[in-house]
Amino acid sequence: MENPANTELKLLDLLRTRYSPRAFADRPVDAGDLDLLFEAARWAPSCFNEQPWRFIVATREDPEAHATLNAGLAESNQLWASKAPVLLLCTTRSTFAKNGKPNALAEHDLGLAMGNLTAQATALGLSVHMMAGINRDQLRASYGIPEDVAIICAAAVGYAGPADLLPEALAERERAPRVRKPQAELVFSGRWGAPRSVDGDR
Amino acid sequence: MENPANTELKLLDLLRTRYSPRAFADRPVDAGDLDLLFEAARWAPSCFNEQPWRFIVATREDPEAHATLNAGLAESNQLWASKAPVLLLCTTRSTFAKNGKPNALAEHDLGLAMGNLTAQATALGLSVHMMAGINRDQLRASYGIPEDVAIICAAAVGYAGPADLLPEALAERERAPRVRKPQAELVFSGRWGAPRSVDGDR
Repeated sequence: MENPANTELKLLDLLRTRYSPRAFADRPVDAGDLDLLFEAARWAPSCFNEQPWRFIVATREDPEAHATLNAGLAESNQLWASKAPVLLLCTTRSTFAKNGKPNALAEHDLGLAMGNLTAQATALGLSVHMMAGINRDQLRASYGIPEDVAIICAAAVGYAGPADLLPEALAERERAPRVRKPQAELVFSGRWGAPRSVDGDR
Repeated sequence: MENPANTELKLLDLLRTRYSPRAFADRPVDAGDLDLLFEAARWAPSCFNEQPWRFIVATREDPEAHATLNAGLAESNQLWASKAPVLLLCTTRSTFAKNGKPNALAEHDLGLAMGNLTAQATALGLSVHMMAGINRDQLRASYGIPEDVAIICAAAVGYAGPADLLPEALAERERAPRVRKPQAELVFSGRWGAPRSVDGDR
C-alpha cells in the first residue's frame, strides 16, 4: 500500500512516500540490499566523526536469531514486527573513543544514521518502522551489550504489504492519513515561538 | 567542490555526494527552497508522532538576526559559519505534550529530522554542516528558549564553495578524504561485537 505525506510542496519523492508500515510482505530482503542500508548509515555525519552508532541485525533466514530480537520488543510491537524479514537493534556508544568523555550528540547522530538508512531503504522499495517500545534490560542480557552502550530503539525492515494483513485495529491505523504540525509551530525566527513567515515577501 | 564518500557500493547519490563543507559560496538560499528543507524535516517519523524538533532560522537577508545566531556559535565555528547564507539552531522539546513525561527519543528524532532536511538540501544542490560547538546558555538567553527545551546543535546551510575560500588549515581539512569505520565494527549479529558476515553466502 501507499500512504504519502499530505504536502503541496515539491518534497523529494523519497521523503514524501516514506511511511512506517506495520504490515510487511512475506518477502526476504536481499543481503546486498542490507549491505547498502548499513553503508548508508555508515556515511552519515557525526560529532567529531565519532560514528557512535552500533547495530545488531537479525533476519528471518536465521529464525532463532530473529526470534531472539523479536522477544526483546514490547508485546504490542512483537504482534506485527515478528512478520518483518529484518529486525535491527540500534545502539550508541555513550563516550568518545579518543578521551572517554560523554558524547552528548550520540543519540542525535544515531538519528542521522537512521535517516540515511531509511532514505536508502525507500530508494530500494523497502520500508522501515522504528520502535521505542523495547525491553532494554532483556536485550542487554541477550546480546551481552556493555554498560557504556545505550540501547536506543529497534527497527523492522522489509517490503510493505497490504494493510489487510493486519488485525483490524492495526489496519485502521495503517490506513489513517499521516499528519504533522504546521511549519509555523516548528520553525521560528528572531525569538522563541515567533513563526518564520512562509509566504509573501520573505 | 566535491568530496564524495569512498564507497564501492551503489549508495544513493544523495547520500554519497553529501559532505559537510566549511566553505560556502556567496549566494543566498531561495525562500521556497528553505520551505522545502523544513517540510522535509517536518515529515520525519518520531516516537508517538511527537515531532519534538523546533528550529530557529536566521538568513543573511537579515544581517542582525544572522549575527545573533552566529554569535552563539563556538569561535572556531564562527570563523567559517559567518559566511553561510542560512544558520539554524536545532532544539527539542524534552517532554511529551500529551502527558509531560520525558521523551527519551527526542534527540534521536531530531537527528531523523535533520537527516531528512539534509537529504532534501542535497537534492537542491545545497549543503548542510552541523555543529555541536555552540554556547547554549547564550543562545537560550538570546532567544528566550524555555527550560523544557533542550538546545542540541546548530547547522550552516548554503551552496558549497571552493576550499580555497578558507584559511589554509581549514582548506586542508576540507580537501581531506572522508573516512568511516568498516561495517564490521558497526554491524553485529547474534552477540555484541560479532560482525555480520558481509560476503559469501549470507
